[in-house]
Amino acid sequence: MKIVVLDGYTENPGDLSWSGLEEFGELTVYDRTSYEEAPIIAERIGDAEVVITNKTPISRETIDKCPNMKYIAVLATGYNCVDYTYCKEKGIPVSNVPTYGTASVSQYSIALLLEICHHIGHHSQTVFEGKWQNNPEWCYWDYPLIELEGKTIGIIGFGRIGQQEGKIAKALGMNVIAYDVYPNDFGRAIGEYVSLDELLARADVITLHCNLTPENTGMINKANIAKM
Amino acid sequence: MKIVVLDGYTENPGDLSWSGLEEFGELTVYDRTSYEEAPIIAERIGDAEVVITNKTPISRETIDKCPNMKYIAVLATGYNCVDYTYCKEKGIPVSNVPTYGTASVSQYSIALLLEICHHIGHHSQTVFEGKWQNNPEWCYWDYPLIELEGKTIGIIGFGRIGQQEGKIAKALGMNVIAYDVYPNDFGRAIGEYVSLDELLARADVITLHCNLTPENTGMINKANIAKM
Repeated sequence: MKIVVLDGYTENPGDLSWSGLEEFGELTVYDRTSYEEAPIIAERIGDAEVVITNKTPISRETIDKCPNMKYIAVLATGYNCVDYTYCKEKGIPVSNVPTYGTASVSQYSIALLLEICHHIGHHSQTVFEGKWQNNPEWCYWDYPLIELEGKTIGIIGFGRIGQQEGKIAKALGMNVIAYDVYPNDFGRAIGEYVSLDELLARADVITLHCNLTPENTGMINKANIAKM
Repeated sequence: MKIVVLDGYTENPGDLSWSGLEEFGELTVYDRTSYEEAPIIAERIGDAEVVITNKTPISRETIDKCPNMKYIAVLATGYNCVDYTYCKEKGIPVSNVPTYGTASVSQYSIALLLEICHHIGHHSQTVFEGKWQNNPEWCYWDYPLIELEGKTIGIIGFGRIGQQEGKIAKALGMNVIAYDVYPNDFGRAIGEYVSLDELLARADVITLHCNLTPENTGMINKANIAKM
């Protein structure tokens, strides 16, 4: 069985090993192929049975050119790079990695919020420079400090990542409100589902965990405008 | 009734108002007096009934020199700046503010941890400088990224602030272990009490929420050495 990794660099810039995959067949790894539709994609897939991609698009044209393909694995959560509707028609299974980013993205998002609240890197650097030691009260701030307890976070897109961020925000003492087209009980246990308009009106902080479709992008603009 | 604030600057460098206190008597606010024992402390208290301090020490000598004092309010959590044993003997109540820092200090402590994990300020700055946009994979990191889920945080001093930090760490997916001389049920609901040696052996991250007494400082050194 032939296995082709089309864009291995993002996952493995040199610090990981692909040898686990070699056990399953003849493996070819390309660091990059093309992040836009291009003939090289089908050329590199050739007669491989298994195709592994991250951001390289697998279009209807590519699928037609590579009839040997039996399985497409997307090494990401979003699988919009694959024409999965056509794959379904052709009986080619497509898999993604739905949860690899749940903990890391929600943690990162909270880290961004805390950077706004504390400018930690700057503060740490100025402490090293002696600003704390030389301050008569041992107490200074170059930026306003923001305490999150009692403030309201509005989460647009309350899936796995949004809910996980909601849990952390709740532990920080924040009120959690969320907007999602598919409310569920996991979400209800963490926060309150509200309409988008209510979310924009009530939230002190807005965080987005949704696809950046044109429709959602319009929503984001609306959110920005409302808070400015 | 005379009220004296000995070191108002830390609480109110100009962005707050003392007028609420003026309703209760004749108020005098000094920005700073002395953070070490000095005759000026008793001179400024004079015949005031109420003394408000943050870091200015109120010693036995000062208490003897100011027999009119009926109440000492410490605008901080730690009240070691007041000879409270002698106050008790003299029947002078001393109050502190035990909880003003619970949310803010635990939030700040987590922000410090996330700075180590993400160097957010640096990353944000380099994104603004175009490093993300110009990266072929839209994916880069100048420092190793650390995911906290599944890692163990060891909290030395598991009082209000330590426990609140434990809740946030737990929401981040961390295992919480704690050392405290006074275990309680609130703490048991958040994490696992362990001995100090076990904490030092098991923790990936150590956070200190204890007084910096010489005994505890020795413990900190031990912790540092163990992790280096």
